[in-house]
Amino acid sequence: MKVKTEYLLFNTSSRFQLINITPLVEKILKESEIKEGLCLVNAMHISSSVFINDDEIGLHKDFHKWLEKLAPHEPITQYSHNDTGEENADAHLKRQIMGREVVIAITNSKLDFGPWEQIFYGEFDGMRKKRVLVKIMGE
Amino acid sequence: MKVKTEYLLFNTSSRFQLINITPLVEKILKESEIKEGLCLVNAMHISSSVFINDDEIGLHKDFHKWLEKLAPHEPITQYSHNDTGEENADAHLKRQIMGREVVIAITNSKLDFGPWEQIFYGEFDGMRKKRVLVKIMGE
Amino acid sequence: MKVKTEYLLFNTSSRFQLINITPLVEKILKESEIKEGLCLVNAMHISSSVFINDDEIGLHKDFHKWLEKLAPHEPITQYSHNDTGEENADAHLKRQIMGREVVIAITNSKLDFGPWEQIFYGEFDGMRKKRVLVKIMGE
Repeated sequence: MKVKTEYLLFNTSSRFQLINITPLVEKILKESEIKEGLCLVNAMHISSSVFINDDEIGLHKDFHKWLEKLAPHEPITQYSHNDTGEENADAHLKRQIMGREVVIAITNSKLDFGPWEQIFYGEFDGMRKKRVLVKIMGE
Repeated sequence: MKVKTEYLLFNTSSRFQLINITPLVEKILKESEIKEGLCLVNAMHISSSVFINDDEIGLHKDFHKWLEKLAPHEPITQYSHNDTGEENADAHLKRQIMGREVVIAITNSKLDFGPWEQIFYGEFDGMRKKRVLVKIMGE
Repeated sequence: MKVKTEYLLFNTSSRFQLINITPLVEKILKESEIKEGLCLVNAMHISSSVFINDDEIGLHKDFHKWLEKLAPHEPITQYSHNDTGEENADAHLKRQIMGREVVIAITNSKLDFGPWEQIFYGEFDGMRKKRVLVKIMGE
């Protein structure tokens, strides 16, 4: 059994940002030399997400607008969590909708993806250092 | 270590449809002869889901109504993604709530399920060819 | 390859409850003697969740209020599922937002977590016996 573990670093320029990390995960997979297995990619922080969807700029705007509607940032005082001095309660909620992690099949040394699947890091409380874990297990 | 990979094909008759795929996954598990391990089942398209919930027709109606409330299909023009000529932006959002994938424990050659757990393919933009991946890893 | 399977039992005192189960999962990991691998933790019932977020009491209140807004318990008659005699349709919906399972990387014999990641059992239809499965696979 082979195992490969890597950590990706992010520090976004805005509070909300979606970043396509597929090439970064593909690079780690190549280095791992794993041909068949499972690949876990997860946010290591609880106000961000890793998810798989479409790399289309219009859709990303839709995600932003939609998440803001379902879990609005303002008014900050609507959330008990923000009584601690934080302003990011909404980011903790948004992350539950978008998810913490994805598990991806590795087949013939490749991410076994449908035609439009791309991996995204979803930042909902940015402008600070965050990490994403990539763990591949197989043979 | 044993690995088994299969692809399921769907082409639903309506835009929204929930299909119980548990028997299909159980068949693949049996063929794999894997006794202990993990089974990944994921949608390979980004406007559909794989999830685990109850096989109860009333609940499926509730899911349909609820998802339509949280991410309505109409009016199509409310979504930037649909400016590309698509009409399925809502399906990309619905899929985030319902999830892309499930990971299931394999114990004693069986899906290690609670009493009501059933695996569903959730189609939110149907009437076209879609695939689901099943990957089992273990021994 | 090593595999460890355990079941956790819950019977909460209230309908909605969030329980930090990180120490229970860490104990199972220690017993498994697995150094590198993947750990699956999932609800075995379809009206509850396992998720990773912050162990902060204000945030837990926010989750409760927010889930009640997105998928209200009352009026019970708004859900077709409740025509079966159940009163828990909302719990089936809430569970989709919060998720069924988490997959956690095991690195150097530890849950490979960011600084604030904690595992929670989320009960949305409590006061009855429920189970959570923990399966660790690695070496």
